[in-house]
Amino acid sequence: MKGPGRLYGIGIGPGDPELLTVKATRVIADSQVVAFFAKAGRRGNARAIVDCWLKPSHIELPLFYPMTTESHFDDPPYEQALARFYEESTVTIAAHLESGADVALLSEGDPLLYGSFMHLFVRLRERFEVTIVPGVSSICGAWGAAGSPMTWGDDSLVVLPATLPLQELIRRLALADAAVVMKIGRNFARAREALTALGMADRAIYVERATMTEEAVMPLNDKRDGATPYFSMILVPGRGRRP
Amino acid sequence: MKGPGRLYGIGIGPGDPELLTVKATRVIADSQVVAFFAKAGRRGNARAIVDCWLKPSHIELPLFYPMTTESHFDDPPYEQALARFYEESTVTIAAHLESGADVALLSEGDPLLYGSFMHLFVRLRERFEVTIVPGVSSICGAWGAAGSPMTWGDDSLVVLPATLPLQELIRRLALADAAVVMKIGRNFARAREALTALGMADRAIYVERATMTEEAVMPLNDKRDGATPYFSMILVPGRGRRP
Repeated sequence: MKGPGRLYGIGIGPGDPELLTVKATRVIADSQVVAFFAKAGRRGNARAIVDCWLKPSHIELPLFYPMTTESHFDDPPYEQALARFYEESTVTIAAHLESGADVALLSEGDPLLYGSFMHLFVRLRERFEVTIVPGVSSICGAWGAAGSPMTWGDDSLVVLPATLPLQELIRRLALADAAVVMKIGRNFARAREALTALGMADRAIYVERATMTEEAVMPLNDKRDGATPYFSMILVPGRGRRP
Repeated sequence: MKGPGRLYGIGIGPGDPELLTVKATRVIADSQVVAFFAKAGRRGNARAIVDCWLKPSHIELPLFYPMTTESHFDDPPYEQALARFYEESTVTIAAHLESGADVALLSEGDPLLYGSFMHLFVRLRERFEVTIVPGVSSICGAWGAAGSPMTWGDDSLVVLPATLPLQELIRRLALADAAVVMKIGRNFARAREALTALGMADRAIYVERATMTEEAVMPLNDKRDGATPYFSMILVPGRGRRP
């Protein structure tokens, strides 16, 4: 009798379908089920990225988030809805694995850096075999799009979400040689304020939808305040040793 | 008449040849010249990783570092030798580009994160067209090998080289939710001391040659002091919001 299937946590890269790894395309091709997260009512960005890598024989398993805005992360009802969503998704995926199917669970960027995948991974890894397929992270996609070397010599790099309070952003950025500010969304003005306070704004770069067709790159100083898309971030290149 | 060729800065990932992106394999296949860094007298790790992606028709261009140890980075004569090496490599690559050949310059991991590629990139980008092909960084390879989710929710991530002085390591790690200590080499004991001082050692993971055949992963507490290979790092996973 056939044993349970294997779960693959697959990094699908920052957006360009050609930035999947060869391993990711092979594992997707060999998996019976392809699962991915999406906002309710949408096809989802992950699904769009892998479109050219799917076959008609694949069983597609969309996992729809309970809500669509970023602003409720600290809201207890939202936390509960999210926990319930992860539990239900775990049950759904476990059923496929128990039936013997291999499941490729897609993760934009890399699976273990701020990915929804991680929430299912920690719920499933005791019961099933799991293989992680690392991917090109969205931050590598962003500085690649900007053509901006990030860390030289002994530079340190700080990656942090703009969802942190202003003083916390400043405290952490103050010790950074190079920095990436992620999850900008509605927090763009605060992120800029922190970088300006530290004198880092003048060399900072704003990147939107890196490696996707609507990609935009500009000096931070040229970007107007206002809400920015989810796939945007700010880069501050390091200035370390350059022989 | 044919114009000058294009330079490609290609991230070839952490070590597993299947972790090249589809784009990297295509660009390598389409380039006339494949250039890579190597220690003098060696074939080099980058060359080994792409072995299955090269064709007999490729012109291979090894760029041999002037010295092989890590310990001389701050030594003025070594800095000068390195600068001369980058200048000479620039001239060699420029000659190929001027002849009309496209040059794929390989970079382990991602090209813009502590890569030698960056030193040639800044010397060539004013004169030639350059395309960056981002890659799976060695840090993503390491935490993938460890199966360790790194950043949850509002976690910040600090990436820093163990070449920094102890007090500097401690000062920067103190503000990190998640951390990666790179360039361990001969600095392993100092890196451990910093993590121990901050109470981060007990959850830290030591990873050696991630995604390569000699890969090793263990709790930091199980690793004995002593020199470690160049391809080793220490991971400290974050402990942020997990609904």
